[in-house]
Formats: sequence, structure tokens, C-alpha cells
Amino acid sequence: MTDVSTCPPLTRQSVREAHNRIRPYIHRTPVATCETISILASTPQAERCPSSGPNTAAETAPHDHNVTGDAGRYTARPTVKLFFKCENQQRIGAFKARGAFHALGRLIEADGLESVKKKGVVTHSSGNHAQALALAAKTHGVPAHIVMPSISTPSKIAGTKSHGANVIFSGSTSDEREAVVAEVIKETGATLVPPYDHPDIILGQGTQALELEEQVKAILENDPALGIAGRKRLDAVIVPIGGGGMLSGICTALHGTGIKVFGAEPRFEGANDAEQGLKLGKRVEKVKTLTIADGLRTPVGEIPWSVITDKTKLAGIYSVTEEQIKAALKLAMERAKLFIEPSAAVPLAVMLYNEDFRKMVEQEAGDEGWNVGIILSGGNTTVEAIAKLFASPKHEEERAGAKVTTNEERVAENVAG
Amino acid sequence: MTDVSTCPPLTRQSVREAHNRIRPYIHRTPVATCETISILASTPQAERCPSSGPNTAAETAPHDHNVTGDAGRYTARPTVKLFFKCENQQRIGAFKARGAFHALGRLIEADGLESVKKKGVVTHSSGNHAQALALAAKTHGVPAHIVMPSISTPSKIAGTKSHGANVIFSGSTSDEREAVVAEVIKETGATLVPPYDHPDIILGQGTQALELEEQVKAILENDPALGIAGRKRLDAVIVPIGGGGMLSGICTALHGTGIKVFGAEPRFEGANDAEQGLKLGKRVEKVKTLTIADGLRTPVGEIPWSVITDKTKLAGIYSVTEEQIKAALKLAMERAKLFIEPSAAVPLAVMLYNEDFRKMVEQEAGDEGWNVGIILSGGNTTVEAIAKLFASPKHEEERAGAKVTTNEERVAENVAG
Repeated sequence: MTDVSTCPPLTRQSVREAHNRIRPYIHRTPVATCETISILASTPQAERCPSSGPNTAAETAPHDHNVTGDAGRYTARPTVKLFFKCENQQRIGAFKARGAFHALGRLIEADGLESVKKKGVVTHSSGNHAQALALAAKTHGVPAHIVMPSISTPSKIAGTKSHGANVIFSGSTSDEREAVVAEVIKETGATLVPPYDHPDIILGQGTQALELEEQVKAILENDPALGIAGRKRLDAVIVPIGGGGMLSGICTALHGTGIKVFGAEPRFEGANDAEQGLKLGKRVEKVKTLTIADGLRTPVGEIPWSVITDKTKLAGIYSVTEEQIKAALKLAMERAKLFIEPSAAVPLAVMLYNEDFRKMVEQEAGDEGWNVGIILSGGNTTVEAIAKLFASPKHEEERAGAKVTTNEERVAENVAG
Repeated sequence: MTDVSTCPPLTRQSVREAHNRIRPYIHRTPVATCETISILASTPQAERCPSSGPNTAAETAPHDHNVTGDAGRYTARPTVKLFFKCENQQRIGAFKARGAFHALGRLIEADGLESVKKKGVVTHSSGNHAQALALAAKTHGVPAHIVMPSISTPSKIAGTKSHGANVIFSGSTSDEREAVVAEVIKETGATLVPPYDHPDIILGQGTQALELEEQVKAILENDPALGIAGRKRLDAVIVPIGGGGMLSGICTALHGTGIKVFGAEPRFEGANDAEQGLKLGKRVEKVKTLTIADGLRTPVGEIPWSVITDKTKLAGIYSVTEEQIKAALKLAMERAKLFIEPSAAVPLAVMLYNEDFRKMVEQEAGDEGWNVGIILSGGNTTVEAIAKLFASPKHEEERAGAKVTTNEERVAENVAG
């Protein structure tokens, strides 16, 4: 990785330059809208029908601020139109391709292609960053060494290998992994490309915000009915936060534009370390959580932290329960028809179910309302994982019982008229 | 419905006129590409890794022509680039909105809005046509009576009611349903809008092909690398066939353009009635199948049949097994990140797994290859239904056993560096 001291400053202009650098290698992912979900988001939770929300939230999260299905109680009525940035359709299926292509491009510029080709790059990751770096390295003919725990799921190992990376197995603790990385560096001279805590990564991840800003403008010029009446631009963006590379990149990209940036975090087992950290005024350095939003289990890194604690850059962080993430995931798939991973559903969950967030939008956006960008950060999950999330044994039993009638119904009418 | 004798002829020009009529009411759905799936489709089945195909096909469908995982045997190597027409993102989640808006628009033009408003429209359907007609009727302020079997799934009933339709329950046999429809017509004078066997419906469904043709041209002008080198247009389209409204509409829309149109059908329990009918030279009038492609259980209608038997319009029909449909569904979701219903996966399954089709493409397209449009007809399924398709009890057990290691792996590294 290039030395931090030689990196471009974390400014909107640097994000623009990063965008120019990576544009040939990444997809300009589409922006989707979904009338049904925008209407739902603009309806108070207490007025929604039970099937449109996590109606078991009251049971599973008794201390939660959110209220669903409680028609007697006031809940906020923000007016919003939503714009989904489909990074699930980015190369390797997640936004991470942006940071990896940018970091590697900068490294090649700094050290020269021949030198980088000779030494190679290395990282440790069992997730999207591994595949992103493998793809970027393959594209430039650079060897990539990816240290993965030997217990990684076979599909992820296969995915990383399919991009031609040299996969090296390690134990699963931090020490064990880093020992293997150190060994690789010693043997090959490879340069470490970390997943989020580096300006080159941050600037790369921020590029999606420039596209979103332009795309929403273009959509609204073409069809104003898709947005808030009379407002021809984005008002706010909600972004998932794990290590914080993407959130700090988007804060940087949109700084000074007047577009508000919000972070969205899972709350389960203290996964909301960034939200907590902001309250305490101190970065939380360790997190141990098994939230279903598995891309967001990481605590926020040092450089991202320095960005998101700047109140002119980040407008706030809000968190959601596991049930709320599942409900948002279900809506994104069934209504918007977008296949996303649980981590990518967290911003939509904040928009739909976090009552503090909703009250704030109701107040700040007023009767006019806001055009809100929702970052769908990735789609790297499997139908089997989705099956595991949504098929409870009880559920299965109910479905089996209902099977006979359903079949009858379906067969009965298969006769041409 | 307007009298068939007064309908426009089934020509490309009529489809253009239908498109002009419905354009304000429907979405111009996006066209997506997916490099991974195009590469897979251009790889012989025998050379693919087992995880990329329905590798249990040999067990579940011993008489099938298709061979997977049999590396010793020759399998075809067509060269194709795929373009997915995302009608899963159409209004009401399926292409049916096109036909319903067109048929109702024509009826209003013929009879006058006041007369249609007074009489209303009626149909019997428990699927996408019910919701499509309900939406079109609501849009024009026309009462819609939808006859649904009382055993219909609650979500479909709720979906239809949510568009303001008057849902009337009936028994589930053909006679019972038609009796209720007759009663509604007697009482209200409502006009029957059938789901597929009418020129107005057929012309409406065909409109998506005009968009696809234009969109693929625009994509290739902008980024030629997304298509076959040197070919700036679509060469073929694969379309699901149930009642045949969409297939005959697309055949009509593309007639005379040189773009070949193919039908794609499930094979389970004789669901491939159109393929069989073409072989026998006689329309199959009854089908009784429980294929997972539940939108394609219907036999082909009379008017669609008259179109698809014209060899200058339809280039052929190919069918696939249940396992092949599931494998294609999995790939569309996991790789292209598109949430679709099983019926919508059938054309992709033909492209990937039907060896007869693949041989034909290899031969006709030659070394140069084809740009192939794949119609993703709808996305009206649920995460629970997907769970049911992909979570076998055996599978669940395996996953439960693997759980501890996976969690360990995921927790171990959640410490900021």
C-alpha cells in the first residue's frame, strides 16, 4: 500500500480523481426506485399492516425504541422517496472493488508496475475484500496472496481462487493470520492492502456517491414524479458502517454539497460500535458479535473514525435490530426485486424502522420531504443462506400442512379456455 | 374485452402502437448483463465445475438429454453474450402489466370511458394477471372484479385487494370459477379480460421486445465489450411460454427483424405442452402439472398457438427439468443479483442446460457467436418460497453441523488493526 503520508487528502476533489482512475475497471452500477417501498417508508409504523414490517420486533427486542403494529401510538411520518444504489451489481458483487482498484492503481503509480508485479500484494480476508483485491491484481497482472482461515466456507475460497489469487490458509485468530501475512511479506516482499483503514481505500469507496448524486439528478430530470415534488436532487444518503471505509469515503465525497450522510449499523451484541463510540466520544476498538449483517461485524478503523467524528461530514449513526434487518432484506427482495446480502439491508432497515431516525427526518425534511439514497452495498449471499434465514422449523411445518390445498388450487385451472 | 374482429392485426406495427398507448403507465424495465453467467453459458457443460450446474440432474432426470459433470463426453460450446430484460422490475412485479394496460386502454377507446367505468371489468386469476388488471383498472378509475379461488394464498389476495379490486371468491374448479364470472357479468355487465388468449393482451406483452431491441443496441453502442465482438445488435431472444401471450407477442414484435425468437418451457409432468404440440402438429389442450415454474402450468391458448406455429415467427421451443430451473434461478440470484420467480428462470435454464438448444446455437451462431436476450418475466415470489425450494432437511442438518466453525471464523477477526 502506498505510504499514508503520500496519499491525496481526504477531499471531494480526491474522490473525483479516484473516480477517474478506477472508472475503466468498475461498473457504474444502476440506481433503482421502488414505489411500494417509498410509500411504506412514508407511512407511520403504527399505520402499516403487520405483514410489511418485523411484527415480532416487540417480542425479540423489548427494549427497542421502535414500535410496529401498535396503532394507538404516535409514530413518525417522514415524507421520502428512496433511490437504491445497486452496488450488489458491482464487480465481484460488492462495492469493495472500488477501493481495491483504486489502492492498487495508486500503488502501481507510486512504485511502478514492474516493481509491483515482482513483489505482489497481500491481504487477509475471508470476505468481499479478498475477491476484490484478487480481481484488481489479476487485471493488472500482479500476483495476489490472500490469507484465509482454513475454515473459510468453500464457496468463498473458490471465489477468490477463481480470480487467480494465491490462497494461503491460516488459523482463524488475529495473531495466526497476521503471522502468515508477515511470512508472505518476508518471502515475497508483497505489499499489504488493508480492507478499509487507508486513504486510498476510503477514496475509492467514496466514488459511488459521486455516481449516485449524478444518477439521481438524471432520473429526476427525466421523470420528476419519481422524486419529491420540486426537488431535483438528493437530500440524504444512508450508508452501512462496519470498518468505516465506505462511510468515511462517502462523507468525503459529499462534503460541502449539502447532502446529509448517515451511517447505519446493526445493534446485535454491540455491533453498533460506531454509534456507541460517537456517544462516548471514543472509538470502540473491539467488537464480538454474530449479527446476520456479517459484513458489519468489524469495529470502525482509525482513519475512518477521524472522518466520521467530523460533524460537518457525518450527520449521525442509527442502528437496527436483527428482525428489522431481516424485514428490510425481505422487502428489498420481494418488492424491489434486488438480491442483496444482509449487511446491505441495514440502511433500508434504518429508514423503515428506526423511530429516532424517522422522527428526525420528519422534523428536518418537513412537509416537503427528502430524496434519500440507500446504499445497497453488496449481494454476496446464497439462496441456501437466505433459506436458513427465513425457514424456521415452525414455518416449514406450517407450509407442509398447507401444501395439499395449494396444489389443488394450482392444478384445477390448467385447462385452456 | 374488445371484440376480436375489431382488434389490430398481429403485426410489428401494431405492437409499436400498443407501446405508444401503454408507455405512460408502465416501466421501461432495465436490461442487465452478467459476465460470469455469459462465460458459463459459453462453456461446455462437461467442462464446468459441478457447483455451477444442476449436478444432480443425472439422478433426478435419467432420461434427460442433458449431461453435466461428465467430462469425458462432448457437449456443445456456443458463444453467447446474455442480456437480461428485467420484467421482474415491471409494475406489479411482472410483464402482465403491459397486456392489462393495453387491453383496458383499447376497451376504453372502443366503448368510451364512462361506459367502461359503469360496467367494470372482470377476470379470474390467482396470479399476476389479477394484480395487473386490478392496477390498470384502478389507474383509469374502472371497477375491477377479480374472481379468485377461496383457497388462494393470503398474500395474493391481499396484493389484489391492495390495488382496490373487488375480490370475489369461488371454488377452485374451472366450472366453479366460470360460474362466478358469469354471475358477475350478469349482475354488473362487466367485460371479461382474459389473461392471454386475446390480441390486445398479446400486443401488449410484445412491447417489451421493442424495448429490449433498442436497449441492447444502446448498450452495445456505449460499451461494445459487453456484446459479441463486431455485432451491435440482438441475435436471438428466449421467452418463457405458459398460455403463450408473451411468446406470441414477442414473435409478433420481432417478426421480420431477423432476431430469432425461442420459447422456453418446463418439462415436468408434461408442462412442455407447446413443445409437444409443435411435434404432434396439434395444440395440447389440457395440462396437469405441478412444475415449480407455476406461471407456466397453463396450456398454450388458441390465438398464441396460431402465431407460434408460424415458422417465420418462432424458431423453436425447448424445455428443461425442475433441477435445471432451480440451478438457473440460483445463478440469476447469486451471480446477476436479480430476484426472480421460478417461471422467469426457465429461459436461462434452456440457455445453460438444454444440450439440443446449445448445439443448435453452436451450429447456427458459429465461431462468431450470438447476443442473446433472456426474458426475466417476473419476480413475484417470497423469501419463504425460496427457502422452501433450497432448504432440504438434509441440507439444514449439514448447515447446523457446520455452524460452530463458521461462527468462530467470523468472530475471530473482529478486532480493529
